[in-house]
Amino acid sequence: MRVITTVSEMQTHCLSLKREGRRIGLVPTMGYLHQGHLSLFKALAGKCDVMTASIFVNPAQFGPNEDLDKYPRDFERDEKLLEGIGCDVLFYPTEDDMYPEGYASYIDVERLTKGLCGRTRKGHFRGMAAVVAKLFMITACDIAVFGQKDAQQAAVIKRMVRDLNFPVEIITAPIVREEDGLAMSSRNVYLPPKERKQAVCLHESLKLAEKLSTEGVIDSGIIIERMKELISRYDLADWEYIEIVDPHEMTPVDKITQSSLCALAVRIGDTRLIDNNIIGG
Amino acid sequence: MRVITTVSEMQTHCLSLKREGRRIGLVPTMGYLHQGHLSLFKALAGKCDVMTASIFVNPAQFGPNEDLDKYPRDFERDEKLLEGIGCDVLFYPTEDDMYPEGYASYIDVERLTKGLCGRTRKGHFRGMAAVVAKLFMITACDIAVFGQKDAQQAAVIKRMVRDLNFPVEIITAPIVREEDGLAMSSRNVYLPPKERKQAVCLHESLKLAEKLSTEGVIDSGIIIERMKELISRYDLADWEYIEIVDPHEMTPVDKITQSSLCALAVRIGDTRLIDNNIIGG
Repeated sequence: MRVITTVSEMQTHCLSLKREGRRIGLVPTMGYLHQGHLSLFKALAGKCDVMTASIFVNPAQFGPNEDLDKYPRDFERDEKLLEGIGCDVLFYPTEDDMYPEGYASYIDVERLTKGLCGRTRKGHFRGMAAVVAKLFMITACDIAVFGQKDAQQAAVIKRMVRDLNFPVEIITAPIVREEDGLAMSSRNVYLPPKERKQAVCLHESLKLAEKLSTEGVIDSGIIIERMKELISRYDLADWEYIEIVDPHEMTPVDKITQSSLCALAVRIGDTRLIDNNIIGG
Repeated sequence: MRVITTVSEMQTHCLSLKREGRRIGLVPTMGYLHQGHLSLFKALAGKCDVMTASIFVNPAQFGPNEDLDKYPRDFERDEKLLEGIGCDVLFYPTEDDMYPEGYASYIDVERLTKGLCGRTRKGHFRGMAAVVAKLFMITACDIAVFGQKDAQQAAVIKRMVRDLNFPVEIITAPIVREEDGLAMSSRNVYLPPKERKQAVCLHESLKLAEKLSTEGVIDSGIIIERMKELISRYDLADWEYIEIVDPHEMTPVDKITQSSLCALAVRIGDTRLIDNNIIGG
């Protein structure tokens, strides 16, 4: 596996692979890899000639009061993991190279970024969309994989790619869960044992929503109320949002008459976790 | 010359040219071509293997009270002109194809878009930047030319390209003027004879600024005052802004100690015209 740490070298290398007719796949990550990330590489298998990954904790998608500084990092471990799963090129740039002096460009994907995480994480999606656009340009990728765990992010990227005509195919890979149902996340490492135990409430509430929907409840308000009740039984948990939305537009749906995204963010102690599931339809 | 009217056909065609190793040049236009546009193609000569042009009056860069509906159009004349100057591919898409249902993506280039035209033309630059990004993706161009006439636009595009790592070289071509100094613009056609005569005040005021600067005046305020005085002598002219700014950052400079952009927008009757010139340094 080749590790490239500058934008110009990565772009030159990838554009030259492209000119040779190679199909490039990209898994963009913020590092501190877990099984969820590795499943993204499996989703790429057979779909590209060159498998690239990026590790970059993108400051532009963190708010001033968010966890940029304490976000977990372990490059050496990540490097070994990527080597082991057959990644061909790892891009590991510096902040200064990604955001040179005078940096000014952000991508707004309107409407889709208003609700869910967009409500509290101001500026998150425009910074995320910008860095993804940059990574698409730098890696000249033909296909890229995103986790369904960040469902709103995946929807925003898909819309951006369609709207701005990026010649990139976007695929999503299912959420990978711990044995007790907690969605894998680099942020799970923040959780001390007591909180880790209670973190299961996100998945529990999603299972409840699915059960209610299967039983014929179509009123989003009723389902959301029941999820809130469930979460309120966990004393370290504090929900930030619980929403049922159109899975493409990310706008709230009152009646679940077709496939809908049930998504939530919950603070467990100081740690903000998200999770989601498709219900109905 | 091949004329292509759909996004998907254009992108497929250009990506296949690219795979064959051809270097693609693009001149994006809103049509109603004049000598200023044609000079952009001359600037491309020898710099690419395939010369493409786009004609698209981009609704996303017009405000609700602007001249989108009355913007002059003459496709057949444009087509002949482009054929004559050796354009290889003309892209002439529809609005529906460029902005499909649910379109949501815009590109904000901060700071550079705050002053000058950005002050009154709210949303103009984010719509312009988005369509230029789309055209870059659709044409897979290696090089694109913009007119220095729209100096702020050119600066915004250059910053976007640098920031988002578009693999596109941007060149600018000098302003082309009528005999009396009026900068060529598709909008000049709006001017009835009396207004057309007074439209020379933009260039006259820029010449005055250059003269003062050459004489050693470095105070922007003094130069701008003198330009305003000059324009006030034209009874059909009403200046919207007159600014002296850093030519890359587009932020006002008080003292002209290096090359600076002197730019103005003036309404002549109902028609809004812009012009600019580099002074100092």
